[in-house]
Amino acid sequence: MDSTSSKIYLDYNATTPLAPEVVDCVTEALTDAWANPSSSTDFGRKAKELIDQSRKKIATMLNAEASEVIFLSGGTEANNMVLQTALKYFKSWAGKSIQMSNSCKPHIVTTNVEHDAILLPLKHFEEEQQADVAYVPVSSTCGQVLAEEIEKQIRLHTCLVSVMLANNETGVIMPVAEISRKIRKLNEIRQMEGLCQILLHTDAAQAIGKITVDAKELEVDYLTVVGHKFYGPRIGALYVKNLGDPKIPLYPMFFGGGQEHRFRPGTENTPMIHGLGCAAELISRNLKIYQENMMKMRDLLEQSLAEEFGENVIVNCNAAMRLPNTSSVSFRKTALTGGEILSRCPELMASTGAACHGTGKPSEILMASGVAFEDARSAVRLSVGRDTTSKQIEQTVLMLKTAVNLLD
Amino acid sequence: MDSTSSKIYLDYNATTPLAPEVVDCVTEALTDAWANPSSSTDFGRKAKELIDQSRKKIATMLNAEASEVIFLSGGTEANNMVLQTALKYFKSWAGKSIQMSNSCKPHIVTTNVEHDAILLPLKHFEEEQQADVAYVPVSSTCGQVLAEEIEKQIRLHTCLVSVMLANNETGVIMPVAEISRKIRKLNEIRQMEGLCQILLHTDAAQAIGKITVDAKELEVDYLTVVGHKFYGPRIGALYVKNLGDPKIPLYPMFFGGGQEHRFRPGTENTPMIHGLGCAAELISRNLKIYQENMMKMRDLLEQSLAEEFGENVIVNCNAAMRLPNTSSVSFRKTALTGGEILSRCPELMASTGAACHGTGKPSEILMASGVAFEDARSAVRLSVGRDTTSKQIEQTVLMLKTAVNLLD
Ligand SMILES: Cc1ncc(COP(=O)(O)O)c(C=O)c1O
Ligand SMILES: Cc1ncc(COP(=O)(O)O)c(C=O)c1O
Repeated sequence: MDSTSSKIYLDYNATTPLAPEVVDCVTEALTDAWANPSSSTDFGRKAKELIDQSRKKIATMLNAEASEVIFLSGGTEANNMVLQTALKYFKSWAGKSIQMSNSCKPHIVTTNVEHDAILLPLKHFEEEQQADVAYVPVSSTCGQVLAEEIEKQIRLHTCLVSVMLANNETGVIMPVAEISRKIRKLNEIRQMEGLCQILLHTDAAQAIGKITVDAKELEVDYLTVVGHKFYGPRIGALYVKNLGDPKIPLYPMFFGGGQEHRFRPGTENTPMIHGLGCAAELISRNLKIYQENMMKMRDLLEQSLAEEFGENVIVNCNAAMRLPNTSSVSFRKTALTGGEILSRCPELMASTGAACHGTGKPSEILMASGVAFEDARSAVRLSVGRDTTSKQIEQTVLMLKTAVNLLD
Repeated sequence: MDSTSSKIYLDYNATTPLAPEVVDCVTEALTDAWANPSSSTDFGRKAKELIDQSRKKIATMLNAEASEVIFLSGGTEANNMVLQTALKYFKSWAGKSIQMSNSCKPHIVTTNVEHDAILLPLKHFEEEQQADVAYVPVSSTCGQVLAEEIEKQIRLHTCLVSVMLANNETGVIMPVAEISRKIRKLNEIRQMEGLCQILLHTDAAQAIGKITVDAKELEVDYLTVVGHKFYGPRIGALYVKNLGDPKIPLYPMFFGGGQEHRFRPGTENTPMIHGLGCAAELISRNLKIYQENMMKMRDLLEQSLAEEFGENVIVNCNAAMRLPNTSSVSFRKTALTGGEILSRCPELMASTGAACHGTGKPSEILMASGVAFEDARSAVRLSVGRDTTSKQIEQTVLMLKTAVNLLD
């Protein structure tokens, strides 16, 4: 795991190491800011200050206001909170509306390539008959969802659209700002027609730290932030536009102490919040530099693989705008699955799909993104990081060469 | 905050510092076990191992099985999860039962001195007409709830009893094992009568690290563990008896990745989980030593205050079994409130009630525990820790003497 390790880590989309600055912040706060931020002692005030500072840093990274950020345990919680909020929002609206009976169901629009932290809560809502859901298929030529396809699925009872900013497996960037423009136009008409306003959420877990994520430009109502995808600790944050404005509601999932303005009670995880702020600050300062290295290494990787494998390697979804660090590659003329290829490269740390899935079957997400079954079978996701070196890329290509050609 | 600081911290019930061993564990894992525990790389496996070890350590501390422990973000989440589980459990039972219509409401029995992380979710259930709740008053002579008072409140639709193991403000220890025995007897009869089995939860946040907490002895179904109350990090765990057994169900609050057997999805906070295991191990090893020091210091404090203030100081709820570290003291013949007394002791870090409450009004919990309004007004909670010294106690008494006598 140390720098002298011979292992090469190209699984930065699964998780990143913590930046050394972040480790320092967390460590410092573990011993210096352990007091209860809600207590009125000096020690408590210091902890509270660190949390306030972090909130500002997250906001700065997102071009948002500190008052629009709440801290929570991670991306899964943030996504679930937004989805559960949508149900309650619709219920409250339907209760008030003259046009609606209280029994009508909310409708949610999403894509068919979201992370399980969106797909599974939605499946659960469907099972429990709490909501109807449209899983809009992404384009099978590029893996991107088209804004007009989202628009087409909007119904009378649609209350939320949730589209990830970038896909974790393919790296494809989704046209969230364009979707937002369409929804705002629709909302103007819906307002006059007395229909429910449509809220817009984006899961930006994979985008932050890799591309500019500007909440104002995206004009989304909710945005999910996941620390461990951008060299921060294992907690998350949720951006809510004008938090407190009843037009963009947020319903707590728990009740308890008054923390996070009662939106998210529980004694604050100060050290990790301090670390999250530090990780955000690094991005505000250095995003360009990080991007440049990632892009360079990713391009070098794809180029070297092409030189090595020729037509027998393809880069999945490379017709679309992609994250600068993500390469989903498939090998042809091989009987090996992606998992088998990786197990033949014991020094290479990468994955075949989302880390929280078992291996084995080809990724549903890749197939939904237009990757043929055979290609999805042999797919390997290589995601580079801030410090990935060209030497590591060269070694990766060599390892893959040995692994794949062996059985070719 | 360092050891040379002149400040005296007697607010260990609000939160504790991390034990140095815990800081080492967290720090080590921050740099050495950052990989995704769900990823099948070597790095991932190492992270997973640490989590498994921690689970064992929590289980050992509670005299439980590792398979009965899940990790989550804290006590608030754990308590809310149990309460929400009760609603779903009842609904599922009522759906199956021939005797019940699907519209009947679950009934939950608790005390009137629980932490807000129990009281407020229950108030919310009542507002939403999701449950009926009995808040059993604790004895006004000693602050302890009587097992028979709990029993008296049980109704046909009672599905959960939730009683904290020890109160955060008074330190009073509740007769949870006795309540458990009564419920088990009732459950035998209810089984024959086709009634819903009553589940039993205890919030052990304040008990762990101060008294022996043995899940088997208590015979509870659910038990809440909160790291930052026992020198661990800001996460928590939930013990669920025979987790997976449908008789003691646990319903996830979120959906997403497969972590924690899908009971609690979200990429695991490995460093803090590792730290929590370490904190648990310290308790399994050293509880006696910790207890002895706390009890000695607490007794010294109460004795010295009595010597200093005579009849003008009272220790609240001292007729009951109390935690070895907690002293809620009230001053008489003073116009000062507890908050005012503490603000006159700038070197003393203590609190007037639960940290997550604002100051100002006298504590509802104290008044519910039988403390007279006037005494609740001037109450100060002094909670000692593992390393509290007799010198600190002496200084505390001196400070209080100056602060209180000034206006007497
Ligand atoms: C008895 C009790 N239960 C639950 C909690 C909630 O824990 P947390 O705020 O860490 O979620 C606390 C501490 O604040 C407590 O004292
Ligand atoms: C796109 C996306 N959303 C959400 C998550 C969930 O984050 P976490 O597992 O940290 O809760 C992840 C990462 O696993 C992700 O890639």
